[in-house]
Amino acid sequence: MNTFGNKFRVSVFGESHADVVGVLLDGVPAGLSLTVEDFKSDLDRRRADVKGTTPRREEDVPTILSGVLEGYTTGAPVAITFANLEAHSEDYASFRDCPRPGHADFAASRKFWDFNDLRGGGHFSGRMTLALVAAGVVAKKIADFSYAARLVEVGGQSDSTSWDAAISAAQKEGDSLGGVVECVVGGVPVGLGEPFFDSVEAVISHLVFSIPGVRGIEFGDGFKASSMKGSQHNDPIMDAEGHTAKNGAGGVNGGLSNGNDIVFRVAFKPTSSIAKAQNTYNFVSGKIETLTCKGRHDACFALRTPVVVEACAAIAFANFIL
Amino acid sequence: MNTFGNKFRVSVFGESHADVVGVLLDGVPAGLSLTVEDFKSDLDRRRADVKGTTPRREEDVPTILSGVLEGYTTGAPVAITFANLEAHSEDYASFRDCPRPGHADFAASRKFWDFNDLRGGGHFSGRMTLALVAAGVVAKKIADFSYAARLVEVGGQSDSTSWDAAISAAQKEGDSLGGVVECVVGGVPVGLGEPFFDSVEAVISHLVFSIPGVRGIEFGDGFKASSMKGSQHNDPIMDAEGHTAKNGAGGVNGGLSNGNDIVFRVAFKPTSSIAKAQNTYNFVSGKIETLTCKGRHDACFALRTPVVVEACAAIAFANFIL
Amino acid sequence: MNTFGNKFRVSVFGESHADVVGVLLDGVPAGLSLTVEDFKSDLDRRRADVKGTTPRREEDVPTILSGVLEGYTTGAPVAITFANLEAHSEDYASFRDCPRPGHADFAASRKFWDFNDLRGGGHFSGRMTLALVAAGVVAKKIADFSYAARLVEVGGQSDSTSWDAAISAAQKEGDSLGGVVECVVGGVPVGLGEPFFDSVEAVISHLVFSIPGVRGIEFGDGFKASSMKGSQHNDPIMDAEGHTAKNGAGGVNGGLSNGNDIVFRVAFKPTSSIAKAQNTYNFVSGKIETLTCKGRHDACFALRTPVVVEACAAIAFANFIL
Amino acid sequence: MNTFGNKFRVSVFGESHADVVGVLLDGVPAGLSLTVEDFKSDLDRRRADVKGTTPRREEDVPTILSGVLEGYTTGAPVAITFANLEAHSEDYASFRDCPRPGHADFAASRKFWDFNDLRGGGHFSGRMTLALVAAGVVAKKIADFSYAARLVEVGGQSDSTSWDAAISAAQKEGDSLGGVVECVVGGVPVGLGEPFFDSVEAVISHLVFSIPGVRGIEFGDGFKASSMKGSQHNDPIMDAEGHTAKNGAGGVNGGLSNGNDIVFRVAFKPTSSIAKAQNTYNFVSGKIETLTCKGRHDACFALRTPVVVEACAAIAFANFIL
Repeated sequence: MNTFGNKFRVSVFGESHADVVGVLLDGVPAGLSLTVEDFKSDLDRRRADVKGTTPRREEDVPTILSGVLEGYTTGAPVAITFANLEAHSEDYASFRDCPRPGHADFAASRKFWDFNDLRGGGHFSGRMTLALVAAGVVAKKIADFSYAARLVEVGGQSDSTSWDAAISAAQKEGDSLGGVVECVVGGVPVGLGEPFFDSVEAVISHLVFSIPGVRGIEFGDGFKASSMKGSQHNDPIMDAEGHTAKNGAGGVNGGLSNGNDIVFRVAFKPTSSIAKAQNTYNFVSGKIETLTCKGRHDACFALRTPVVVEACAAIAFANFIL
Repeated sequence: MNTFGNKFRVSVFGESHADVVGVLLDGVPAGLSLTVEDFKSDLDRRRADVKGTTPRREEDVPTILSGVLEGYTTGAPVAITFANLEAHSEDYASFRDCPRPGHADFAASRKFWDFNDLRGGGHFSGRMTLALVAAGVVAKKIADFSYAARLVEVGGQSDSTSWDAAISAAQKEGDSLGGVVECVVGGVPVGLGEPFFDSVEAVISHLVFSIPGVRGIEFGDGFKASSMKGSQHNDPIMDAEGHTAKNGAGGVNGGLSNGNDIVFRVAFKPTSSIAKAQNTYNFVSGKIETLTCKGRHDACFALRTPVVVEACAAIAFANFIL
Repeated sequence: MNTFGNKFRVSVFGESHADVVGVLLDGVPAGLSLTVEDFKSDLDRRRADVKGTTPRREEDVPTILSGVLEGYTTGAPVAITFANLEAHSEDYASFRDCPRPGHADFAASRKFWDFNDLRGGGHFSGRMTLALVAAGVVAKKIADFSYAARLVEVGGQSDSTSWDAAISAAQKEGDSLGGVVECVVGGVPVGLGEPFFDSVEAVISHLVFSIPGVRGIEFGDGFKASSMKGSQHNDPIMDAEGHTAKNGAGGVNGGLSNGNDIVFRVAFKPTSSIAKAQNTYNFVSGKIETLTCKGRHDACFALRTPVVVEACAAIAFANFIL
Repeated sequence: MNTFGNKFRVSVFGESHADVVGVLLDGVPAGLSLTVEDFKSDLDRRRADVKGTTPRREEDVPTILSGVLEGYTTGAPVAITFANLEAHSEDYASFRDCPRPGHADFAASRKFWDFNDLRGGGHFSGRMTLALVAAGVVAKKIADFSYAARLVEVGGQSDSTSWDAAISAAQKEGDSLGGVVECVVGGVPVGLGEPFFDSVEAVISHLVFSIPGVRGIEFGDGFKASSMKGSQHNDPIMDAEGHTAKNGAGGVNGGLSNGNDIVFRVAFKPTSSIAKAQNTYNFVSGKIETLTCKGRHDACFALRTPVVVEACAAIAFANFIL
């Protein structure tokens, strides 16, 4: 189902090439200041009109349909929509016969049959992350912590001076790159989360794996922790607030926030839609064919994801804190 | 909350040193064959009475309290308990003042105050995974796929011939090791999962992060995917069943199962409780002190986790398929 | 929270005098035929432009924002909005100081403080039943049974020839009337519902008590059953389909549908907003004052509720049958 | 599913003639005093060893399996079981072929087939209300209001001096009686509940219809409200606490508690199992036969239900207040 959360409840709707992408937020406390301007900064970070991002240019101005009166939330559900103004749908019809590698085309055709909206990825599109970012803006007002996510790797390179060249090279080849985002949440009080099943890690990872293209997530020392000894990974508590020496646990013990920054990293795959020729199976002819994705795509959509990752963290914490 | 799932609902209860650890299963279809013997094989894998596992030896024989009549499930909820017969609780009192590094002691004391049951880790104990394994046994009957999880790394080593020596060495130093588990689920039909928010990856990761000591999870090419090009990571569909050339997506596209094996890896930290001296903060004296964990602990609890990881996958798929 | 259902999930949003009233439907199967015309018949029954209903005249044409492509549902969430074109908001400001008897004004002011949207009843308005009726239209396609609800009493009279005169008389006095609706659902298969807690009666009553102004609900023999003997109320099964002699159970035994028509009655109070002078407490002056509700109101809103009651039944059964 | 609540979560399990009836409570705050003795008073009211109640005599001593340490809740889930010591299961086998009128036998046989546990009503038994009462004891500690439910009618008579004779007469005829319970909850703060869908009435009625044998529920003026005029049913607010002149709304406006006592009435049918001969359909022979229920049954189970109704109210309010 397209809903997450039991206290701050986020429901997404819309498709990439339908009239709108939208989000419905329930559990928003009355009296939060909320205007269209509040969304601009995070939405702009998602648009990221730089090299390596899609040439599709949408205004992405939110329309607040309900739940806000004279600049303040009323306590009723907040519905927000974004118009899809720049959709060009002629490119997608052939994917019904020849599903794109790395896309949901084939699996969705088995789940929803011919009724699935393939246009621009439909409900599976990365454009749905608009809804997450909008939810995140409200969530950050509820769980009023510091959120800082940033790209730490592009195409396997951690040196950011090399990224521009790598992206240019990939674009030239009609290819794409992935990346890794690190997110740090500061100011989280001790004891949020549940031992079973709603640990801080469980809820954040549940949300993060809703972002299209995520392949992995790790907290604190992450996968490296598995090759450390207990005496190396364990983290001495240093003071009465629970601060530890090195935060190898990424701010979570036993599923609960422990008073340190929450730190996690998310691996994004390279964009699936590439101009470079790829093989795929043609379900009509029964033969393997060569496919080229024209459309308008990000060469490295990971560039646009840090603010989406922040939104997921904020949605998680809004649920924990309410 | 201590419940997961909306169709196959798993609720865990109990504490490491209380009378029982238990699990309540709802949504179990009527007419499944279910006896105490069905649990033995998976429970034995969890006990893993080999070097590197705890000297605490429990019988772990399930008692089926309800929902089963004459060897078949009735459609009513199935409650299962396991007696805690070998609990020695004298070891834990001091952890209230001096929380163990890497444990939930401190965070739990802020969430539940002095009422938290610290004995043996209480409700935070790895012993709670008994409940998950029992749920997994029933889940595997509902989502009747093939589940195969195994350790692929111990202490950073992928060569299994080196593990015994590494564990011995760690034990000698009063230290502990972590590990990585890989899980493969075969026979999953195409189209399970939801695009938002209940993708296959989201639901599995939510459950997996409920296992104490998990630090990361990745699907298919995982973190490596972030350093691959689209043309490398993309996976050509090869036939009408959706089989792909290399399964780099780990069996999931757009959140939906794509007809290939579901493949994921889970990073486990080294056991937190170690005999080696560690620093911690004494909340009574306000000073940093040296702590030694006596108790009975696994030197490498990851040895016992593959069947727990399988259980999480099975619980996820039982929810998808019902 | 403003969401109901775990398989067919209905979320309402909007306010009486905001831009829209809307509903978000999740769990709608792909491939249902759905067009704006499908809503007309039920929406018209709700408008009921007859004596005794509000002079506010809205077009109530649904806009389908998402989840439908070329006349068929796609499997993605279906968002539907209705524009509020005829809102006159100048009438409501004074109710913040002097809450109307029988209304949510006072209780809402304590829950949402001054941020509550009082205009036209805001999110508490009977206009929100538009969202329920729209959800019901889709639910009836999923749970494709026969639904027939009708008024059986107005102002305590079961003889429908007297209703028009009674309503005229009440209007002349600036007063209002209540009514009773009976709903019959036919063609329900045996065994829907759950013994605990989601019995057929529990789920229907949960939904029905979401309609503003409901005071009671009863199934089959209802309150009369409490004065019958077992030998009178018990209902002999007559054939292999489970048909009973008199359906005193209203089609439900042990919480499960039993193969007979589901029959229940719902009591609606008289409209709270009346022109006749009433006392209320003025929270500013601290004195009891006389209040007259001008606005535009139904003299007997029960006239418009049968289709809303049907919608509730259909939403319940859509959840049971999916 | 057999679970209710999202903050104070109640899950029931067990069957009338299985080893136990039990309840699992989640969301119980840490630090509540809770001992076996706390349950005695409410459990005794449910046993009600007076004329008209079943000759089955169970001890009904709760066993607290988890979540309580040294007399206080720990914050972990609380599991409670009651042993079934006096089950006599030989009486029920024939009901598989000849379902009892008024019972779930037939509907359950279509839902769970031959796997349903018919013994003593199995999971559909009134004995499951033990679980509700136990949950209510804890709920009353969380939502610490005054709860007072009592029988106001037996067999249609409101004069309690006539009840004993009426029950004796019904028993002599091998017949049974129903009754009406009124419940008053005092001390409820203003503003609990939600406008949609979790109104105070919706949540209470959802729970109340989980009690076997309920046929109707009404709040405040109830069904009578439908025959009143607005000027009669409306209820002037009298003071700054929101107290009204006559509480015709039963303490709820717009789904929210309004500062007055919550008042509702519940109609219970007469016991279905009667010694008097009744017709039923024999699914083996295909003929209508005469059935006599031997077993041990309440002549008027409504006598035992006031404390169960209180428990439902308390569970509702525990969810609202947490």
